[in-house]
Amino acid sequence: MRAYDIILKKRDGYKLTPEEIEFMVAGYTSGSIPDSQMTAWLMSIFFQGMDADETTALTISMVESGDTLDLSSISGIKVDKHSTGGVGDKTTLVLIPLLAAAGIPMVKMAGRSLGYTGGTIDKLESIPGFNTNLSSEQVVKQVNDIGAAITAQTADLVPADKMIYALRDLTAAIESIPLIASSIMSKKIAAGADAFVLDVKVGSGAFMKNIDDAEKLAQTMAAIGNNAGKRTAALVTDMDQPLGFAVGNTLEVMEAIDTLKGDGPADLTQLCIELGSAALILAGKTDSYDNGREQMQNLMHTGKGLKKFRELIIAQNGNPNVIDDPSLLAQAPVIVKAVSSKSGYIKQLDALTIAKAEAALGGSRGRADGSLDPSVGVKLVKKRGEKVENGSLLSYVYASNDESAEQAVNIIQSAYEITAVKPQEIKLVKSVVGL
Amino acid sequence: MRAYDIILKKRDGYKLTPEEIEFMVAGYTSGSIPDSQMTAWLMSIFFQGMDADETTALTISMVESGDTLDLSSISGIKVDKHSTGGVGDKTTLVLIPLLAAAGIPMVKMAGRSLGYTGGTIDKLESIPGFNTNLSSEQVVKQVNDIGAAITAQTADLVPADKMIYALRDLTAAIESIPLIASSIMSKKIAAGADAFVLDVKVGSGAFMKNIDDAEKLAQTMAAIGNNAGKRTAALVTDMDQPLGFAVGNTLEVMEAIDTLKGDGPADLTQLCIELGSAALILAGKTDSYDNGREQMQNLMHTGKGLKKFRELIIAQNGNPNVIDDPSLLAQAPVIVKAVSSKSGYIKQLDALTIAKAEAALGGSRGRADGSLDPSVGVKLVKKRGEKVENGSLLSYVYASNDESAEQAVNIIQSAYEITAVKPQEIKLVKSVVGL
Repeated sequence: MRAYDIILKKRDGYKLTPEEIEFMVAGYTSGSIPDSQMTAWLMSIFFQGMDADETTALTISMVESGDTLDLSSISGIKVDKHSTGGVGDKTTLVLIPLLAAAGIPMVKMAGRSLGYTGGTIDKLESIPGFNTNLSSEQVVKQVNDIGAAITAQTADLVPADKMIYALRDLTAAIESIPLIASSIMSKKIAAGADAFVLDVKVGSGAFMKNIDDAEKLAQTMAAIGNNAGKRTAALVTDMDQPLGFAVGNTLEVMEAIDTLKGDGPADLTQLCIELGSAALILAGKTDSYDNGREQMQNLMHTGKGLKKFRELIIAQNGNPNVIDDPSLLAQAPVIVKAVSSKSGYIKQLDALTIAKAEAALGGSRGRADGSLDPSVGVKLVKKRGEKVENGSLLSYVYASNDESAEQAVNIIQSAYEITAVKPQEIKLVKSVVGL
Repeated sequence: MRAYDIILKKRDGYKLTPEEIEFMVAGYTSGSIPDSQMTAWLMSIFFQGMDADETTALTISMVESGDTLDLSSISGIKVDKHSTGGVGDKTTLVLIPLLAAAGIPMVKMAGRSLGYTGGTIDKLESIPGFNTNLSSEQVVKQVNDIGAAITAQTADLVPADKMIYALRDLTAAIESIPLIASSIMSKKIAAGADAFVLDVKVGSGAFMKNIDDAEKLAQTMAAIGNNAGKRTAALVTDMDQPLGFAVGNTLEVMEAIDTLKGDGPADLTQLCIELGSAALILAGKTDSYDNGREQMQNLMHTGKGLKKFRELIIAQNGNPNVIDDPSLLAQAPVIVKAVSSKSGYIKQLDALTIAKAEAALGGSRGRADGSLDPSVGVKLVKKRGEKVENGSLLSYVYASNDESAEQAVNIIQSAYEITAVKPQEIKLVKSVVGL
């Protein structure tokens, strides 16, 4: 087998065998295939695509490039939840406790923010004392004890993905469904869960900007999971405007707590119920979506989810009093208002622009080793479809100083598009794949 | 300017500026752009193409990566002739003396054989004593003295082409018209001539297998040359069967001498006349194709071309007596016949297969540093369209031993496709671009 021939085959649009795909991934990881040949192969995949069989083989080859987490000492169907990333997306903070409370062992390997995407680990670290660096042994013990653990990604899972992603990032080979899907799914599968519920975001604040690409990514990831013997469902959900009202680390933790209490924003609450219901089906806790929804609502209204979140914070050395006293979280010294300069209906509340405001406030990091201020952020007051007057309050800005606050206000105002005609409603959940 | 953005732009099908193209070529040549990014860019060109402006800019950037030959001390319009390579193609040996005899200063940088393509330098080196390694100074002096020089390519022209070609060869990015055209034309332009006549071969024995690709390559190269201020014409010519009867180094030298005398095979003679007429127009020696043809025929029949070839051999330290006594060339010890095993018309005489027979005899080199036997080869007797009987002589095989001779006979027999119906004639010159 020669890398040249495998590049040529894909370049000319033919289907590769699992052995050929394994040859490329293992060869690149071991150093026998140079960057140039791997780039030519990735670019050929970019242009020619891969079918579900090939994408599954690519994912499995990547999983086999490194360690996998052994969760076999945790009994029950372990479900992992993954989002492709959006603005104001704090569903993980809500879902993990709720599903753990439903009796599903929840092992969540989460990431940090980068660029305009938020990171669950950063949000949790805004809780004083919260430890996000658990060893595999600690994870297993904690899940066996309280049913849930959230930890930062460990370094030795899927080294092939790190190498391939770095190469794609250098060579403009990012926006390829098979490469995106295999990157995500290899990390999920290596992390050892039995089933996956995936939230594929679509819109301005998401990686996938149009519905066709998002649907394709959802279908591809569901196919990979199911082909690899892991039951996988994927929801395609709106990310044209931010999810909920809060964008910023401590603000989002507070909103997650409200949602666990049943007092969260309608869209965030709905999304947690939908994703949770899918997870309940995958875990065999119900066979009906409607019943799953009911279970999720009960877990909120009975306070069982919030109780589990408290246990989770305690187990990971955080201060659980933040639940009752949000002032224990980092507080921004400057709070200002962004107001509307015209009257009408909000047609658009651009998620990416709000993320840029958050970045301008210092709430996200531009580089992987950069720092962020957990206290800053945006609290939206008006969202898409609502009516505003000239001078109406649109959002609160939480800032570290007046200058960045003013900058953020300007950015936020530009995120709102206001028209005379009431816009059509946009569905939060666009489609469900794999259930 | 960032390599990433330039890759992305071409990947997504946009037209690049000359500055962007120069940035990539200069950056790769200097080492600031890594193999991976250059591969991604070349693959993007492979898939998205380049228009004439871009391909010209690419060619000029490549020329500027190294030295160029300064032929300004040779007066007159210097014409260079280039063929994309074929089987039995000895036109350079015929054309250089003929055109020099017509008063055009002919500076020819030629190559060696590699794989199944013949090399003018190897053919000339089968003439005892012939020196193919001339310095730039020797070339200029010789052209000023006798009007022609043929030399092997010097090492320091177009280093970018060497680097880019090596990368394309590793990454399956060879078959791209803009990349092929810029590779050829950059070397031509750097070699300093004022005008180019190009022979783009199409068919089984050529790099271009179909007429559409060949036409496209011819048009692209002519556009590059003319955009770069060098008058350029390109002929697309048949290479489905070998050119002439002789395939093999000494055999081809003998056939070239016959052709210079006006006794050459019809197809080779015609091609030399057509290419020569185009060169005469480019050099301003005539403005009519028909008159050009007449001039070429006169140069053959008056013996002026042959006289110039003799001067050329003498100037480059070869033994000119080979012209009158071919036995001074290396002689193959074994000569055997390949005969037909059926009756009918020759529908196909596959050029690539004949090249393989020549390779089996040891007449071409598999690797750039390999060796070859100049004496061996194939002398075709019957070609496409002719009638044969069972047992008819098809070809003579010139071999170094019985074993390779037998092997070559088998290969040659497989090159002939014989059918009951007389096949249609195939045009030697398919089209002319740039005149």
